[in-house]
Amino acid sequence: MANRAELANAIRALAMDAVQKANSGHPGMPMGMAEIALALWGEGEMRFNPQNPDWANRDRFILSNGHGSMLQYALLHLTGYDVSIDDLKNFRQLHSKTPGHPEYGYTVGVETTTGPLGQGITNAVGFALAEKLLAREFNKPGFDIVDHHTYCFLGDGCLMEGISHEAAALAGTWGLGKLVAFWDDNGISIDGHVEGWFTDDTPGRFEAYGWHVIRPIDGHDVDAVKKAIAEAKAVTDKPSLICCKTIIGKGSPNKANSHDSHGAPLGDAEIKATRDSIGWLYEPFEIPASVYAGWDKKEAGAKWESEWDRVFKEYAEVHPDLAAEFKRRNAGELPANWNKVVADAIAEANTKAETIATRKASQNALSAYVPNVPEMLGGSADLTGSNLTNWKGSTPLRREGNELVGDHISYGVREFGMSAIMNGIQLHGGWRPYGATFLMFSEYARNALRMAALMKIPTLFVFTHDSIGLGEDGPTHQAVEQTATLRLIPNMNVWRPADTIETLVAWADAIEQKQTPSTLIFTRQNLQFQARTEAQIADIKKGGYVLRDAADAKVVLIATGSELDLIVKAAEKLAAEGIAARVVSMPSTNVFDKQDKAYQASVLPAGVPRLAVEAGVTDGWRKYVGLEGDVIGLDRFGESAPAGELFKLFGFTVDNVVARAKALVK
Amino acid sequence: MANRAELANAIRALAMDAVQKANSGHPGMPMGMAEIALALWGEGEMRFNPQNPDWANRDRFILSNGHGSMLQYALLHLTGYDVSIDDLKNFRQLHSKTPGHPEYGYTVGVETTTGPLGQGITNAVGFALAEKLLAREFNKPGFDIVDHHTYCFLGDGCLMEGISHEAAALAGTWGLGKLVAFWDDNGISIDGHVEGWFTDDTPGRFEAYGWHVIRPIDGHDVDAVKKAIAEAKAVTDKPSLICCKTIIGKGSPNKANSHDSHGAPLGDAEIKATRDSIGWLYEPFEIPASVYAGWDKKEAGAKWESEWDRVFKEYAEVHPDLAAEFKRRNAGELPANWNKVVADAIAEANTKAETIATRKASQNALSAYVPNVPEMLGGSADLTGSNLTNWKGSTPLRREGNELVGDHISYGVREFGMSAIMNGIQLHGGWRPYGATFLMFSEYARNALRMAALMKIPTLFVFTHDSIGLGEDGPTHQAVEQTATLRLIPNMNVWRPADTIETLVAWADAIEQKQTPSTLIFTRQNLQFQARTEAQIADIKKGGYVLRDAADAKVVLIATGSELDLIVKAAEKLAAEGIAARVVSMPSTNVFDKQDKAYQASVLPAGVPRLAVEAGVTDGWRKYVGLEGDVIGLDRFGESAPAGELFKLFGFTVDNVVARAKALVK
Repeated sequence: MANRAELANAIRALAMDAVQKANSGHPGMPMGMAEIALALWGEGEMRFNPQNPDWANRDRFILSNGHGSMLQYALLHLTGYDVSIDDLKNFRQLHSKTPGHPEYGYTVGVETTTGPLGQGITNAVGFALAEKLLAREFNKPGFDIVDHHTYCFLGDGCLMEGISHEAAALAGTWGLGKLVAFWDDNGISIDGHVEGWFTDDTPGRFEAYGWHVIRPIDGHDVDAVKKAIAEAKAVTDKPSLICCKTIIGKGSPNKANSHDSHGAPLGDAEIKATRDSIGWLYEPFEIPASVYAGWDKKEAGAKWESEWDRVFKEYAEVHPDLAAEFKRRNAGELPANWNKVVADAIAEANTKAETIATRKASQNALSAYVPNVPEMLGGSADLTGSNLTNWKGSTPLRREGNELVGDHISYGVREFGMSAIMNGIQLHGGWRPYGATFLMFSEYARNALRMAALMKIPTLFVFTHDSIGLGEDGPTHQAVEQTATLRLIPNMNVWRPADTIETLVAWADAIEQKQTPSTLIFTRQNLQFQARTEAQIADIKKGGYVLRDAADAKVVLIATGSELDLIVKAAEKLAAEGIAARVVSMPSTNVFDKQDKAYQASVLPAGVPRLAVEAGVTDGWRKYVGLEGDVIGLDRFGESAPAGELFKLFGFTVDNVVARAKALVK
Repeated sequence: MANRAELANAIRALAMDAVQKANSGHPGMPMGMAEIALALWGEGEMRFNPQNPDWANRDRFILSNGHGSMLQYALLHLTGYDVSIDDLKNFRQLHSKTPGHPEYGYTVGVETTTGPLGQGITNAVGFALAEKLLAREFNKPGFDIVDHHTYCFLGDGCLMEGISHEAAALAGTWGLGKLVAFWDDNGISIDGHVEGWFTDDTPGRFEAYGWHVIRPIDGHDVDAVKKAIAEAKAVTDKPSLICCKTIIGKGSPNKANSHDSHGAPLGDAEIKATRDSIGWLYEPFEIPASVYAGWDKKEAGAKWESEWDRVFKEYAEVHPDLAAEFKRRNAGELPANWNKVVADAIAEANTKAETIATRKASQNALSAYVPNVPEMLGGSADLTGSNLTNWKGSTPLRREGNELVGDHISYGVREFGMSAIMNGIQLHGGWRPYGATFLMFSEYARNALRMAALMKIPTLFVFTHDSIGLGEDGPTHQAVEQTATLRLIPNMNVWRPADTIETLVAWADAIEQKQTPSTLIFTRQNLQFQARTEAQIADIKKGGYVLRDAADAKVVLIATGSELDLIVKAAEKLAAEGIAARVVSMPSTNVFDKQDKAYQASVLPAGVPRLAVEAGVTDGWRKYVGLEGDVIGLDRFGESAPAGELFKLFGFTVDNVVARAKALVK
């Protein structure tokens, strides 16, 4: 059996060799965290099954310092996951399983995509919260079927990022005792030794958040790391931060403890020197059998899972309904009655025909849907009463002793943290998180939205107060360009519904997604209910549809959300003047763009001039109206004033729509 | 003379009456911070001149909890600024001086626009850094011409935001002793009492950043606040946080200490009850003369400024060059030789004709410009060697004892903090800050970019590694939609230059702006130098221009940055096949859009089909190519692989451009 030094050096060798072969990557971190990884992955502290990476009760591992991806790939390979030595040789090559940063969906065993610093640890907080809430719901006396830890490696960069503050504060508030973070305290970031720009007393800071902090240990002492892990596990009412003093690039005689080892290959000469120095005399990508044997976790993993399987089988006998529900939720399937729930809600709203704000319509949608889809886990970044993300019967999530009560999460004023935590909750499984802030503050959270789209996970982002319609709070709070920019994120469905019915359809479509996140954009102010046929209601799901048609239309009017009623009324006025206008509602351009060309052409017929109306920047509409069409929008910032005055000031009036439409009609 | 209670109650009355009249706003904070404001503004702790809000050496005041804007408006009115009682009556009305949140440029005495939480305190860090560095440069023995404090009010919301972590960590690292922050510790945020979501030990947290923390004082005790301010000023090597226990909405019998007073009018009945309770029996907007007399700072302000004027006059006699330079920099004027500096740099680069990465071209531009424009103050968010924001002769900014040395700021991994600090530096005056990260992480900073655009200040944002051209780091780091979304921010000039010459012009244009921030986007990889005539070089400044023309062109090819050389080569190949193609370089669509129609039509002639090529999302290009044209872009996320392979994979090849161009030619 290989000794600890050999086991750890296998990581060092794989990392430096793969980076060298790719001529790109970050060897320093894997070389510095090799012993920590050995303690956690190699010596049984973390439980997982390499042959079933999706085992529901596995411990979760998140590499928040994702640039050190070769550490994770080496661990996956060595412990027996389906990551081969050839995969490691293909590090950072096109369509390999080993991309530059760990990518969820590309590599088995990678729980989340990391690289954008600070988001991994924030995802981890989401994982740990998901575990705690799932355990609350499904565990029964004698059956702790949800009972795992979330482990996270993070570096100085993660700790400098603002989002680490938001994540750590919430983890402390919620008392997430099963979250264990390892700080790779190597004193180096890209610009060099961090003393000049990173002088926080990090242990003190985390204690201020209510964390259990294990003060600096030697991160190269496997026993010390294991002891710290045991201490961390023993504290069950606080998340733990283990501060590990490490040497970046350890083993490299000339580049260890230097940013030279951080983000570039060591070079052939230095790799040779490192091999000599650590006594690793094998060829690149050669791992002796004894080392494989020392790392292999296939047998242990199978045993861990089979023990859980046995418990779960008994659980299923005693609590068959719960077991079935647990399976359904982990599989991400909707309840069997889902379609009926949606149809009933739409039918009821259609009868009520309410003219209300779409944020209120959203709350009604949640009150109709969430009781039937208990995996929905809502929250707000300190704007519950404005976002209306709470629903009939929900109660605020609060800590009581070491328990959490309630089901609507108060994220506080932490938009980015909320969004990345939601991604973690979604990735954990068993939940469909949604959370809200004002549309403007989507900007604070933006990269987390992108990460959901990149990972192909259906996180639900809710944004209210969507335009100058919020009025007096003024331009700092009035979204002008945000809807347009959100639409540009690949694999993001942006919905801006126009009334209660479109809101119900948008929510339903978002909930039904499995690989696409949705952004749901709602108004502060009331929006006119629009009458529709059943066929029109069915077409809402296509993202854009004809709401009011006219024979031989001379102009097509297109709008979203709060501007829809404006074009409906303009079309009526145009009709009175003898000009036939078609009214197209386009609640989701992204979804409309996915329809086939025939459907698109049936909505936007060739040769008929088009006028788009939306209270936001105009450029995005050129893809629908072309150079010959027109757009009524807002290519400037708003003003602080009552909303009604602003809509008039900026030309969102029936008369202006009529005038601009007439100008298009030859 | 009015007593303190009356002086503080004047703020309470103005706040509740103005919010009630507007039927919108936040009365709770002004009512809760009235005594703190009295101590700072009313009793001589803060030095300013209401009759000259631009006095260079005034203390700066920043309301980070900007929703409490009526506090600041009341203070400006009462102390004698040009904010009348009618202005207060017009609170939150169209085109008033008193918009919903404090807006820079709308109201004299407002140093920065606030509302988006956490950014005000971060701006304040920038103000304090600007002061310290300006003092280092201009103060001489006996002449402390730069010597003022920066005061900041902030609330729980600011402290929850991640950016507060980034700002506070840097303020501590830099030892900004003249920064004094007042935490309005009222225990309330919008969702209610904060215990459920905000449990940080905030004093402990700030001590971990190296701040001087004054533990909870009674924020309604003016003497206690003044004592704390004195203590804060006495500590000159650490920023100070004064923790002030306050009661939100204090004075309101039924809504104090409740979120009911946070963000909505108190209501007529409660306002009457409050008047009775605090003994303020005047009509709405009626302020007795004795209260005005107690607040008036016109005389004191004139005296403070005249004392400084006297010193500066002597300084100008002893150090005439420095005094002239100080005036120039505070006025935001460029040096007299600026045009020659630019012309020389362009001429030299044109002779060299280097094919290098535009990030390297950017560094060369900085090395040419910055020594001639010493107000340029650069930095990077821990990517100096990648962003290449340092220049020949620059040294890293570091703390030595209580001094700062060096001139290139190491912001650490804090993109949002960096950007909002830059806004603060720019607003302070005397500096032109620029700072960089990877283009992807513009997303972490996005709302600070928007705030610069909204405030009409010319902050310089630099982003490198601009596309799939960064290669192996993969999709988490490959900007696809970022350039397009940045272009949608109103009043933002986005530049994506194609070679050394366009880079020099872009930088020069950005530096010359006075009311528009610029975003400068550079490649990781080398870009081919393009030969140009003098007229073409002059036209770069117009944002788009004809680089290669052809008589009777059948198609117009448009590109930016790294794709320009592709269309140049495609045009050559098309020419060889007998198809005349015009090549248009469009380094800044925003700037091109500002040109007159005639110029635009001269570049993009009507009736000739257009093909745009850019390694990013395509929608934005429809405004130039229309529905009939075509775009070669990337409407999906990238992949981890060497850059050359990715460009091929996604169709950025000469052959593909040729094929798609030919398809457009009828």
